[in-house]
Parts: sequence; C-alpha cells; structure tokens
Amino acid sequence: MAKTNPGRFFEDYTVGEVIRHAVPRTVSGGERALYHALYPARHALYSSDEFARAAGLPSAPLDDLAAFHVVFGKTVPDISLNALANLGYAEGRWLLPVYPGDTLRSESEVIGLKQNSNGKSGVVYVRTRGLNQRDECVMEYVRWVMVRKRDLDAPAPETVIPELNKVIPAEQLVIPAGLHFSNYDFTLAGEPHRWGDYAVGETIDHVDGVTIEEAEHMLATRLWQNTAKVHFDNTARPDGTRLIYGGHVISMARTLSFNGLANAQMIVGLNGGAHANPCLSGLTVRAWSEVLDKADTDAPGVGAIRLRLVATKGGAPFELKGEDGKYLPDVLLDLDYWALMPK
Amino acid sequence: MAKTNPGRFFEDYTVGEVIRHAVPRTVSGGERALYHALYPARHALYSSDEFARAAGLPSAPLDDLAAFHVVFGKTVPDISLNALANLGYAEGRWLLPVYPGDTLRSESEVIGLKQNSNGKSGVVYVRTRGLNQRDECVMEYVRWVMVRKRDLDAPAPETVIPELNKVIPAEQLVIPAGLHFSNYDFTLAGEPHRWGDYAVGETIDHVDGVTIEEAEHMLATRLWQNTAKVHFDNTARPDGTRLIYGGHVISMARTLSFNGLANAQMIVGLNGGAHANPCLSGLTVRAWSEVLDKADTDAPGVGAIRLRLVATKGGAPFELKGEDGKYLPDVLLDLDYWALMPK
Amino acid sequence: MAKTNPGRFFEDYTVGEVIRHAVPRTVSGGERALYHALYPARHALYSSDEFARAAGLPSAPLDDLAAFHVVFGKTVPDISLNALANLGYAEGRWLLPVYPGDTLRSESEVIGLKQNSNGKSGVVYVRTRGLNQRDECVMEYVRWVMVRKRDLDAPAPETVIPELNKVIPAEQLVIPAGLHFSNYDFTLAGEPHRWGDYAVGETIDHVDGVTIEEAEHMLATRLWQNTAKVHFDNTARPDGTRLIYGGHVISMARTLSFNGLANAQMIVGLNGGAHANPCLSGLTVRAWSEVLDKADTDAPGVGAIRLRLVATKGGAPFELKGEDGKYLPDVLLDLDYWALMPK
Repeated sequence: MAKTNPGRFFEDYTVGEVIRHAVPRTVSGGERALYHALYPARHALYSSDEFARAAGLPSAPLDDLAAFHVVFGKTVPDISLNALANLGYAEGRWLLPVYPGDTLRSESEVIGLKQNSNGKSGVVYVRTRGLNQRDECVMEYVRWVMVRKRDLDAPAPETVIPELNKVIPAEQLVIPAGLHFSNYDFTLAGEPHRWGDYAVGETIDHVDGVTIEEAEHMLATRLWQNTAKVHFDNTARPDGTRLIYGGHVISMARTLSFNGLANAQMIVGLNGGAHANPCLSGLTVRAWSEVLDKADTDAPGVGAIRLRLVATKGGAPFELKGEDGKYLPDVLLDLDYWALMPK
Repeated sequence: MAKTNPGRFFEDYTVGEVIRHAVPRTVSGGERALYHALYPARHALYSSDEFARAAGLPSAPLDDLAAFHVVFGKTVPDISLNALANLGYAEGRWLLPVYPGDTLRSESEVIGLKQNSNGKSGVVYVRTRGLNQRDECVMEYVRWVMVRKRDLDAPAPETVIPELNKVIPAEQLVIPAGLHFSNYDFTLAGEPHRWGDYAVGETIDHVDGVTIEEAEHMLATRLWQNTAKVHFDNTARPDGTRLIYGGHVISMARTLSFNGLANAQMIVGLNGGAHANPCLSGLTVRAWSEVLDKADTDAPGVGAIRLRLVATKGGAPFELKGEDGKYLPDVLLDLDYWALMPK
Repeated sequence: MAKTNPGRFFEDYTVGEVIRHAVPRTVSGGERALYHALYPARHALYSSDEFARAAGLPSAPLDDLAAFHVVFGKTVPDISLNALANLGYAEGRWLLPVYPGDTLRSESEVIGLKQNSNGKSGVVYVRTRGLNQRDECVMEYVRWVMVRKRDLDAPAPETVIPELNKVIPAEQLVIPAGLHFSNYDFTLAGEPHRWGDYAVGETIDHVDGVTIEEAEHMLATRLWQNTAKVHFDNTARPDGTRLIYGGHVISMARTLSFNGLANAQMIVGLNGGAHANPCLSGLTVRAWSEVLDKADTDAPGVGAIRLRLVATKGGAPFELKGEDGKYLPDVLLDLDYWALMPK
C-alpha cells in the first residue's frame, strides 16, 4: 500500500460528505509576531492587547486573515492537491475571534459537483468550517475548485450547483460578543476617518508597494501548513517559477490597505474573491479599494463597510477589467469583503 | 478628502508640539524568537529567563534594541515619511525593561526647527518617548531629520536648536531596579572578560560577518512596523535597490559584537549615531568596537562601559574617516552607546 | 588579551574534560511558530496542544529536532569552530520533552581523541547533553568532528576511541512519562498507516520538494544560535557560497517525511547520521525513507520504528551509494533514527 497522499480526484467527492482535515494547530504570540514580520500589518485591534480591551475584547485576536489561512491550509491536502484552479469564494463569515492558545482544525462539506464538458475535470464546491478546541465554529466559507479526474471513464456525478449569496446580507454578519467602538482612539488607530467619512463608490489608492521575495512567501505559506508543491518546489512548474499562494497576496493587499483604511478593523465577511492572475516573486504588489456598500450594526459605535480590495503588480489604480470583461493582466486579486469600522 | 497619509512636511511642525504616534504594539515570546532568527543575538540576559533571574530581573526582557525599534517604527509615519536624511541621535536612555505582554506606544515632542538656507527643507528635532501600558516611559531619545517643505513659499519658523549632551553623563544612566551582577556566570555568558579587563582606547575586531538578504531586512523592518517605502519597494528608488533600515544595521552590528563583548549585556544609553553610508542587500556586514569610556555604578557588580560600535561593508577594521574628515565609503554605521557589564 | 573567541584546536581537548557551553536559551511559542514557518512541519503532536493532551502530554512539546538544534547550536563555539568536518553522530536519545518556558543549556564531555596520521588535525569525540532549568537532561548525543591543530608540533594525545553502539537497543529508548496512543485520532494526524502497516525493508518516497533560499537557512541557523561563519558570510568560502547548516537539511527532510510517515510522531533515538554532500541554496531538497527495524514498547499503543531518512538534491529515490561504497553526489543526508508510532 502506498503510504503517501495522492490527493483526491474529482470522482472521489460525494455531495453531502464531510471531510475532517488533518493537523490541528495551536496558535500563540509567535504566529502574531510572524504575521507582523511577513506583512505590513498595522491594524491596532490586532497589534495591541490594550487597544482590543478598550474595544471590549479580552485581548488582541489573531488577525482574521491569519485565522483564515490556518483554516484554509488544512484543506489543501484533501481539496486542492490536484486542483487545476481555485475558482472562487463565497459566504465567508468570521464567527468567533481566535486567541493565542486556541487550537484550530477544519472540516469541509461537499456541497456541489459539476463535471466539465470535456470530461477531464470537474468543479467541486465545499463549505469549510474552522473549529476551535471547544468545537465552536470560528469561521466558515465556501470555495470551489476545478479538480482533475483520475479515471476519465468514471461516470459523471449528478450535477449539483449550490445557491450562494453573491453578497452576505449585513444582518447575517456576526459581531464578536462585547465589541464596541464607543471610546475608539482614532489617533492610536492611525487615521481620523470614520465610517461616516466613507461614501459608497469612493475609491482609495493605498499608494505603498511591497516587492515580493521567495523566502517570504514560502515562510508564510508553510506557517499556515499549506503544502501545495507549486509554492515551494521550483522544479514543479515547467518555467521554474514558484507560484505564490493566493492567500499571501490577500494578506499583503489587506495590510497595505491600512493606508487609507486604518479603521476598517475587523473582517467579518468574505463575499467573493478571484485570483485574477498568478503572482511570482520579484513583482511589486500594490493595492486599491472601492467602497461597495455600508450598513449599520447593533454594536455600539460599530458600522459595517463593504469593500472591494484589488491587488496589482503594476498599471494604474482603479482599473480592473478590459473591454472583454476579463481582468487586466496586472490585476492579481479582486476581493469583496465586509469589515467593521468605528462610526 | 484624501484618505491616505501624505506624511508631514517641514512647515507642519511647531516647537513644543507633542505628536502621539499610532498603532500600539503588544510584544510576546514571538518577537524574542524572531529577534534571534534575524540577528546572531547571543547576549545571555536576553536569551535566558534563568540568567535574567540570576541577575535580579523577573525574566529576560525584550532586547533593548528591539524595544528601540518598536518605539522608533511608530514615529516613521509622522516624522520621517518625507525625510531626506536621518541626521543624528542623542540623549537616548533606556528607562525600564520591556517584557513579553507589555504594550508599547510612542510620543514625540518637537524640540527644535531650523530651515535650511536653500529654503527647500529644514531640520526637525524630536524627543521621542516609548510608553508602556501603564504610561511609564520605557525609553527616550532625540533624533533629528531633514524634512522637505511642501510649500517652498511657507515662511521659515524661528530657528530653535536644542542643546543636547554629546555624551550622557554616567550618573544619568538608569539601571533597572534590582539588577545586579553579584553572581554572574561568565561561562554561561560566553566570555571571561569583565569590566576591569577593558581599557579606554582598546579596539576589538568582532571578526564575524553576515551577508544581508532582502527577505531578512524586510521581515525585520516590518516586525517593527516601520513602513517607509524605500525599504520595501524596489520601484521607489531610481536604481531599483531597496535601502535597508538603519536599525537593521544597528542590530546586526550589536549582535556581531557579542564576539568580544559578550558581557556588555544591557544597553542603557545612546549618545549618538550616524548612518554613514547606505546598506544594500548582498553586502557582508562586519563590526568593530572601541572602548570610549568607563564608569562605575551603584548596582552590585555592575559597571558601565561606553563603546563606539562601527559597522562596515568591507575595508580594514578600526578605520573610520578619511583625511577629509568624512566617513570612509565602507563604513555603514558609527554608534556611541553605554552598556552595563559585570565588574 | 584578545577578546574574541578563536575556538579550540585539537590540542586543546582532554579526554574526560566537561565543557559547559555558553548562552542558555528560553523557548516559547515563538520558536514553535518559526519552526512551522521554516519547515513544512505537520506532525500533529507538535502542532496541537489538544492532540498532545490526548496522547498524555501536558501540551505540545517543542519539536524534537528544534530541541536538538538548540542543544547543538551552543556547542559550536567550543567544538566545531575550527572543525574541518562533522564526521558522525551516535547514541542520540531524547530523554524529556521540552516545553515553552523551558530554558536549555548544553554541556559536552570529551570522550575520545585520535590524532590523524598527517599530524595536522585530529578527531574529537564528545558526548553532549542538553539540560533544562532543573538540570534535568533533556537529550544527549555523541558526535565526532575533525579539528585542526593550532601548533603542528604539539604532541599527539593518547588515542582513545569510544565504544559506541551502532544502533541504540530499543529497550534503552526513553518514552516520555504518560505518553500513550490509546485513543489516537488517525484522521487528525493525517494518515491511516499504523505501526503494523510498516514492514522492515519498506521504502517510501516522500514525493514533495522544497527549494532552499539563503534567507531561510540563515534565519533557521541563527534561531538555534549556531554562529559558524560558513553559514552566514559569503566571503568566508572561496566560491562565495554559504554552506547550509546540516541540521537545516535534517529538519527539512524530517518534515518532508510527513507525507508517508505522518504517524512517526516523536523522535526518541538518533543512531547515526552523515552529511553526505554539502547543501547550497537554490537546490531542491527531497527525501525518502527506509524502514530499518521495529520494536514494541511498554507504553499503551506505542510502537517504535527505526528509520533511515535520506535527503537528496536530485537523482532517483532509494539510491544511496555507488559501487565504490561512497555516497552518490545527489545525496545530502543519511540519518538513522528511532521514532514512536501508534500501534
């Protein structure tokens, strides 16, 4: 019996099946420090226990995207080892903050399958949940990937395409218990702009850029125990490049967005996202945002803001797609998320 | 209203003004581990809780220079975003050790202003204080930077040049409460040389060298939340290089100085410092030291030693300036500091 | 008196002498997070406090190899600064798990000396022990290195060659107190293969590869406070390359072996090891294993498995030596160790 994991192929998935992913992970101050070393992370709620306490939390949580990466990384060996493409995200919600000392594991339910017309591959939809040591769900999201078939003669499964919200309704966002921005210190947070200062349709060029190094994206991707070989092995791709984990670009863009969105503190919803073009080392990543929507919440002083976050490797800000409706070649990422901001 | 931070220009500063800097930061064992990964840090007091306890401290503090970097990093968006040059440091004192769990923030008071004769820029002097979660000052230092004017027609401010000590008098150095070197273990510390073994005028070649990588200086600089774009963006400078944060060179030189100064445990004073030439990746950094002065202290077994620490990228040790009085091209750093050493 | 450490030469060692090594080190969650960032580490017992508790331990220990690196790193300034070659390891045993908060130091006893026939160097055998803050021995191992003579006219010492076990008898392996695999969760651990599923003589190709970067091996080697200049200074070797610390290759190979040996959780014995060829940055490291032996233990559900772990930089798996009995040029490491596995 072969001992190594060959990964699953399209015909290995069944709608309704729940896959328990391996390797639970306890996080500590070490993960927080590394997140600050790997990305220009400056959002105060994740940087300072005192700032988090002033906002009603027991201490600074692990960055929301770090929690996402830990949960996501565990799914790779079961979901995307033989994936041809990561097609999309939907219905992502952060349900509980993750604190140093928490242990995370992941589960994915197969919620859709559709064989491609060429018969060589198919689309697998999974809803992934991150669970802590008390089996509480800390976050969930749907993603769909294109996966190869092992056996081209395997029969096509019944097509099931899940109905997914294009946007999470604001009332379904979960605000952490106790969170408030009643006595929010805008000076310590870094910018004076509050929820009311942002207008739907407004665009923000985050100005700064970071040139990407091989060592850094590999450190980051390993930290999340994502072991997809294309990220690490320069012999795994015909051109000798290492493909950078899409999540590295997400975190880079989000942290660059501090400059103009310093008060978009907590990410609570992921409406969708596309990795528009591959990211390779040596590129300089920049970011721009667009305000897509705003909504009030019941938490004292807390508003919700829906943002488009775009990462680029060049070109002018605020340009996204060409006349053909396709992403421009310099666009790396197009992400749609909800964040919480002081009113 | 533009949302991103354009930084301050020379005419935006007023003598007497106190600027509260953004993004408080809680430190943990993660920062300590990263400091050991980024630099060849071996001073025992910062490496071992047990060694620190034997010296009268509750546990190993965060490295003094790591505390400095955290405090310094916060000032960048308000002080040096539009700086043309970092001109000098003075009157730096470490006042309280920083421990895992502490949260640091920074404030700077503008203590001097002098417009340059060309009318295009001026020198801004600030006294920066690092404060912990109890609003205790953990360290302070003066630095002065040359900052561009936004509006060349803005009137020159009244010239105020602060009087600064060229050297901090030994009696103004602050020894951490309880610190003693009464039962100091020289074997565990790594070298037998005690305070009495060093003579004023003595020079030490620290022998070892470290070749600098882009990934490492960016990890370090981000860890301190210093976001000056020249350190990260290879499109920000005409020659496509990334300028290495001067503090990275300070930490590299100080940790290399372990070999010959293993017992210069705590840094308590920063008399002055010059970043003589820019540091770029690919260079191999070396260091040498000169004993500038010695002083006794009231703490049991503790002496103070004043050291010149020079980092180079080549050339012979102990050569600093040319006949024209200017730093030689291979000199990166010339730092003047006080450290505590067992007698 | 020169202040820097010139290292010891062959004639400076005496059989029976015990060398206390410098710079004790307290470990925390920071070291654990960095180990996950530097290596594709996924063994569940070291990743999850909850998984470790289910196996009878108080929390997840520091990875066994991280503990080894910390203990080893301290010996470098006294044992291998003037070494021409690291010749071998034997009788390595892990005696106590290391937990966050523990402080480690090292001692080495000289147990053998043999001058080489050329009179220019000799072989030094040391038994190194890692001790925690309670002076308990957490691990021990023998290694022997070839060290230069300072003075070629120094007389040869009496030759003493220690008798060393080629393989540690299984009954001498130390199982951590309380460890059991009675209710082991194979799904969370990542693979279904139990001790009974492995046959002596079986070989496993671990498939994945990692391309090595300068920044990463330097971060790792510094983290263990190993300051041998060949790892850091590209001017220290005639060809301008940096030689990668052999322990970096050991950890890379061990963590790559997760894919096929996910349940070989704890390393308890190091029978031997050879760094067959130097490792340089830019290479892609792969690994394969061979089951050398199996033994039962008294701990509930726990079996011992003896494995050969080979790291390569190319070539076909399972090829080790040429017809001349020498390691093939693509072989980097040949390690022989005992691990604990659920039955």
